[in-house]
This record gives sequence, C-alpha cells and structure tokens, in this order.
Amino acid sequence: MKHVVIVGGGFAGLNVAKELGNKKDIRVTLIDKNNFQLFQPLLYQVAMAALNAGEIAYPLRIMLSKYKNVTVLKGVVKTVDPRNKTVYTDFGEMQYDSLVLCCGAKHHYFGHNEWEEFAPGLKTIGQASEIRRRVMEAFENAERSQDVAEKRKLLTFVIVGGGPTGVELAGSIGEMSRYYLSKYYRNIDPKLTRIFIVHSAPRILQTFSPELSSKATRALEKLGVQVWTCSLVSRIDADGVQVGNEKIEAGTVLWAAGVRATSIGKTIGFDTDHSGRIIVEDDLTVRGYPDVFTGGDQAHFALPGETSLPGLASVALQQGQAIGRNILLAFQGKPKKPFKYRDKGQMATIGKNAAIAERGNVKLSGLSAWIIWLGVHIYYLSGVKHRLFVILQWAWSYFTFGHAARIVNNEWRFYTNVQEPAEPAEREELMANPACVFAADARQ
Amino acid sequence: MKHVVIVGGGFAGLNVAKELGNKKDIRVTLIDKNNFQLFQPLLYQVAMAALNAGEIAYPLRIMLSKYKNVTVLKGVVKTVDPRNKTVYTDFGEMQYDSLVLCCGAKHHYFGHNEWEEFAPGLKTIGQASEIRRRVMEAFENAERSQDVAEKRKLLTFVIVGGGPTGVELAGSIGEMSRYYLSKYYRNIDPKLTRIFIVHSAPRILQTFSPELSSKATRALEKLGVQVWTCSLVSRIDADGVQVGNEKIEAGTVLWAAGVRATSIGKTIGFDTDHSGRIIVEDDLTVRGYPDVFTGGDQAHFALPGETSLPGLASVALQQGQAIGRNILLAFQGKPKKPFKYRDKGQMATIGKNAAIAERGNVKLSGLSAWIIWLGVHIYYLSGVKHRLFVILQWAWSYFTFGHAARIVNNEWRFYTNVQEPAEPAEREELMANPACVFAADARQ
Repeated sequence: MKHVVIVGGGFAGLNVAKELGNKKDIRVTLIDKNNFQLFQPLLYQVAMAALNAGEIAYPLRIMLSKYKNVTVLKGVVKTVDPRNKTVYTDFGEMQYDSLVLCCGAKHHYFGHNEWEEFAPGLKTIGQASEIRRRVMEAFENAERSQDVAEKRKLLTFVIVGGGPTGVELAGSIGEMSRYYLSKYYRNIDPKLTRIFIVHSAPRILQTFSPELSSKATRALEKLGVQVWTCSLVSRIDADGVQVGNEKIEAGTVLWAAGVRATSIGKTIGFDTDHSGRIIVEDDLTVRGYPDVFTGGDQAHFALPGETSLPGLASVALQQGQAIGRNILLAFQGKPKKPFKYRDKGQMATIGKNAAIAERGNVKLSGLSAWIIWLGVHIYYLSGVKHRLFVILQWAWSYFTFGHAARIVNNEWRFYTNVQEPAEPAEREELMANPACVFAADARQ
Repeated sequence: MKHVVIVGGGFAGLNVAKELGNKKDIRVTLIDKNNFQLFQPLLYQVAMAALNAGEIAYPLRIMLSKYKNVTVLKGVVKTVDPRNKTVYTDFGEMQYDSLVLCCGAKHHYFGHNEWEEFAPGLKTIGQASEIRRRVMEAFENAERSQDVAEKRKLLTFVIVGGGPTGVELAGSIGEMSRYYLSKYYRNIDPKLTRIFIVHSAPRILQTFSPELSSKATRALEKLGVQVWTCSLVSRIDADGVQVGNEKIEAGTVLWAAGVRATSIGKTIGFDTDHSGRIIVEDDLTVRGYPDVFTGGDQAHFALPGETSLPGLASVALQQGQAIGRNILLAFQGKPKKPFKYRDKGQMATIGKNAAIAERGNVKLSGLSAWIIWLGVHIYYLSGVKHRLFVILQWAWSYFTFGHAARIVNNEWRFYTNVQEPAEPAEREELMANPACVFAADARQ
C-alpha cells in the first residue's frame, strides 16, 4: 500500500486526489488548513457582499467522499524532510511514498509589510470579510458624518493593482455606490464617491491584448473609476495612498498588486524562483526529488525560453491531473510524462454586462464576454447546490441591484484585530507556511 | 417636526419605525450597532452550519427604504439624559421629542463571567460563527486524533440550559453526528458522540405543557441526546462541566441558560427588575417619563398579579406596533392606549420532522408541529429573497442531510480572540450597553 500525502486542497491538490481516488494499493492523505476548497475566482464577490462565504466554499470531504482511499485532515504542515520522506504537521508526523505540495500563493507587499494593516489583500474568506467590513463601514460612517471633508475621504477607495482582482473590486465598488448608496443612504451624495485603480504598468490587465485592456478601462470609467497607470505607490497609511507627488486621501485602500508562493518551498530547501515558487521539471517533480511534486501557484513551470505559466485556475487544475497521472505511472514503474498546458484563455469582469475574454485570437468584450464569464464560473464551481445558489444570487442582483447580504458586523474584525493563538516564533513559521490557501488568482 | 429616536433595530424597534413611517411632521432616527436586523429565532441554524449568516440578517435600510422620514444610523448609544431629552452616542449627541429603547437582552452567567470563555452563548452572528467553529473543529480534531480518550472528549457536547435554544442546539448536533459524521469522516465512530442537556428545572421547555415537554425529551433521546434535569452546573472549564458530583469531560460546552436585558436601563437610572429589564407602565412608557418607551426583551411588562411577558418575537413585535401608535397619539395630544398582548402561542423544534407547538389548549408535536414551525418562521423572515433562500436550504438539507455550509475557518475566531479596538474603560461601557442586539430568544 503506497501512501500519497497531498498538502493543499485547492484546484491542484484536489485534482491530484481525484486522479488517485479509489486506485488499488494507494491511500491518500490530503492535508489543508481549512476543511473546504475555496473557489477563489469568486472571492471578490464575497468581499463585495454579493455572495455568502458558504456559497463559494465547499467541504473537501464531501467533494472526495466517493473515494474511499482518501482521508482529509485539517492541519498545518510545518516542514518536510524529503530525504526521510517525512511530513511534519501540527498534529504529528507522517511518512509518504509520494508527496504533492500545492500550497498556493499569498500576498506580497514588496518589502512593505507595514502596508498590510492599511491595505488588506484578498486571498482568504477572512480577508474577504474584512474588506467587506471596511467598505460597508466606510459607507456607514459617511452616512452619519456631518463633515464634508471627512465624508469625501470616507467615500474614497483606492485599489492598488490593475489585474483581474483589482478591476473586479473597483468595478463592484463603482456599481455599489452608483446603484446601492444612492437608493438606500439618506445623507450620502453618491457624487462624492471616488474610486481609483493605481497600477504600475502602462496599462491594466496587461496579460490581455491592448484592445481588451482599453475596453476594460472605458467600462471602468463609465462606473466612475479613475484608472491611473504607470503609477507607483510609495506610501500607504491611515490617511490614504501616496502616488509620486500626489496624496490620495482615502478611507479605504485595498491591495491587489503582488503575490508570492507560500514559503514552504524555501523552508524545505528546494530551488525557488524570485517569487518563492518551487522550480519543477517538465514532469512536475521537484528538481532532484522524483517523488515530490508541485503544481498550481506554488510551482514555477516554464518551457525552455518561456516564462512560467500564470497563476490561473486552469493551470492548477491541469497540473493537478497531470501530477496524479504521473504518480500512478511512477508506482507502476513506468516513466512519467511531461506536462503539456492546454491554454483555455483568460477573462475578467468589470460589472453588470461588462467583461472581457480572450482565447487565442478570439477577443470578446461587453455582454457576450460577460455571459461567457458567468457560464464558465458556474461550470467550475463545485456542487449542484452551490451552482443553484450562486445563479439565484446573481439573477436576483441583476434585476434588483439589492444585494441583501450587504450587512456589516463589527464582530467581523478578522484581519487586524485577531490575536493568533500560536506563540510568536511558531506564528512566524505558520505565517511563512500557511498550508494551504489556494490562490487561483495570482493573475497579475 | 417631531424627532423620534429609536435605539435598537430588532422586532420591537423596527415595528416602531414602520408605524411612524411616512407620517407627517415626524422624522425618525433608528440607531443600531449593526446595519441589519438579525432574525434571532433561526440563529442556531447559522451556528449549526445549516444557514449562512447573510440569509437571516436583513439590512435595516432596505426594510425601511420606503419610509422617507426614517434614517438608519449605525452606532452605539452610550447613555441618555431623559431630563434634557438627549441621547449620547459614539458619533455625537442627539435631541429627541420621543425616545424608544429596545436594546434586547444578552447572556447572563449568574455571576460566573469566567464561564463565557468555555461556554459561549448564542445571541449574535459572531457568537453563532464561534459556536460553529468550535463544533466543527471538535469533529476535525477527533478525525485526526489517534487517542480514544481524547476522541471521546472531543465528541462530547454539553448544552447548559433546556429552553428552546438549548433544545435546538442539542437536536442539531445529534442530527449532525448521526447523519453527517458517519458519512464523511473516516476515523470517527459516531457511537463515541455524546450530547448532554443540563437543565436546572425538573423538566426542559418548562414554559410548555408537561406533555409536550416530555415528548420533546423523547425526541431528543432518539437523536442520542441525554437530558439531565434538576441538574445544576457548578463549574465550567477547559475540561468540561461539573454537575453536582459528576464531571462531564467535554470538548465543547455551549451556554443557553440565562439572559439579562442590556444594562442601558440601569445606566440611565430607570427602574429595572432583577433581570435588568426596564419596568414599564401599561402604555409601554417608562415610569415617570411619558416620552420614553421601551419594549421587547428590554421591557418588564406585567399586568397586576402576573409575571412579565416572556422574551418572544411576537411580544416584541406587538409592543413595537403599540409604541408606534402611542407616539402618534401623544403627538396628537390624545391619551395613550394600554398595551394588550395577543398570545400567539409558542413553539420549539428538535430536528427533522420533530417539533412542538402550543397555543391555548391546542398542543401539537411531531411532523404537524414541525410543518407549522417551518411555515411560521418563513412567514416572519424579512424579504422575499431571504425566504426563498432559506426554503431552498431547508429543502436541500431535508433530502440530502448534506449541509454544504459545513465549513470551518480558523479565521473565524471572533469570540475569544478578538481584541476590541476600544479602550478598557470605554469597552466596559460598550459591553454594558451594546445598543443593540435584539434577542427574540430569551425564552427560558
């Protein structure tokens, strides 16, 4: 009986488990710090109060229940000794015959970790709830404030980073203030609302074609979003954001700029690239360790002369399947196969009826892209029930703009005020290695 | 233009606002610490992962949006000076012509506040999330534990208090372990699960007839719940609960025993009863202050020779309407009318197809009571969308027992690990006066 340990239950890890499910003489242990798979591509909708967290998080055990040889354990992997084939977790150690590390990515503040407090990122349900709390709290405080300057600051939102997540957040805040604020708040002039995307490159969504990128910019501007390109943030604090010589006074700053692989690769001593991603061979094994695999946002996979594959859900999903098949081949004593990526294209949404989608030479924008966006996301969402509920939520919002989930709770102070139970030293270790938040959205 | 200030947006406060909505020459300010109304009767389902929090919380502004003279402000009322008709809040002060205090109730540990850490109560979304986290975490830890004694402790759940909330929690945990644990967890023997209700009185649900109360006991026992009556808890700590000479080693203890009105009545200096409830006249005004009203769990309303009305949603709802009508009469210079309670009966649910309902001499149990329970709760829930979603969630669970919301998130550490942003002194003040959690469930 061979034992496969999978660390991380995102798109990559989950698909490894599925490939190995109910295979003879193999038992699988999947370890994740959460007992659910988070559908990261829709996380921004939880942050924007359009969906409930439970609608995009699906219990791993239910997803894998038909595979009797798969056990899911909730826990944190501290490190791995690849020479002795041992995984060290917060609930003991574990031997493996084959190890899969798919721990995803987390935010990266380019050496400015002090910005995190003022500009939370969007990778976990806790962060989504914190962003929701901040945005809704800004509206609440603006509603009760008597001071126009204060109101103006409270109603100013800066999103750092113009990749898909930044665009989605900015578009949602634009729609919210345009349709929701004006209808339900008595003391807010929606004209006071200002939303900025501050982006370092010459154009937002730079992985798309220039044509689609400028269409997205125009769609954002229609929603009242100001897009600042070639703009570098030099400071973020409680008052707002410093961009070159300009200071944007803002009550809410959100971070959608940089990601970095979880640092477990470094901790173990594997070769990593500048983003902390583990460099893998063409069969997705770690260089020098034929029984250790990695995929998804954790992996740096590049064909000769090319850059690494982007942090997309479809990359993670395909790599997970390939890892599963290669483990089976290896156990049968057969040679592993090199991974071949089938490009499924990319898409981003701006708001109601507005999205962009690109696949090869096909470029779509507006309503058609938006409908494809909806369909693809529903298709990849796990579970019939989740699909039904998300479709209903969207249909409701589409016709009413009345997201009933727009509640804010002071108890939702996950982010800045959570006292971690771990000791400082241990905590640092855990922070360095959160096994595993899956991040399908490292698409900058 | 008369100004009415309502503190608290529960069933009572909300119905005052509705009565005064769009009335000439009246403007209304509703202050609540949350921007939503929480449908407290279904809060235990959020704690038990059967519903999402967003499905039972409805934004006050949307509920009141058709009343142009009503403004909702999110804030905390610190105190009131009834002689100068001034309300002091965390965002400034405010004059009123008429004041309504409906701040509900909170948990009461009978002088043992140190128990709260080990036995959270169920009044807010944060507490519901914390209870969910503890219960699901117990299952997760039991799944990964190798030690039978530890597993047994982790799978032991004690609910202190045998009122409707305690019964609902115990029944849900019973169903969860029977149908869900056995199906999806590989290393848990559901037979190890033990659930206790520890209740001080000779029978649980003592506001119901003895016949229904014993039917509920039998339904609980069918789900594996042990009901200990005439049992007093003398100690709660990390190891479990001490009941007389017996120690129940338990990983999870939940508090459903005592409630107490929020202390704003005492802070202001109004006459209060032993539970902190403000004693009101028959027209729901505070004794000596004809322009201050109170209702719901905050109010002690008793006809001569009778005990105070119970903390039921229907009491709060009717009192809210009566307060609204009396304010209108007072503004017109007419005499206020005494409040008359129309008894709508009471009900409690144990699990699938099992509930009890009583109204006058009509006593129902089992499937019929359960169907009525469903219907009444759907009817009183706010908003077509919430009703639709809750019906769908229930229908899904009914046929599958697969609550897909059964996720646990380490970031959901609202309860014990939340560092409050307020200063200690201020915090105590806030804690003493959380304006306002509405509590429809003080039904012990």
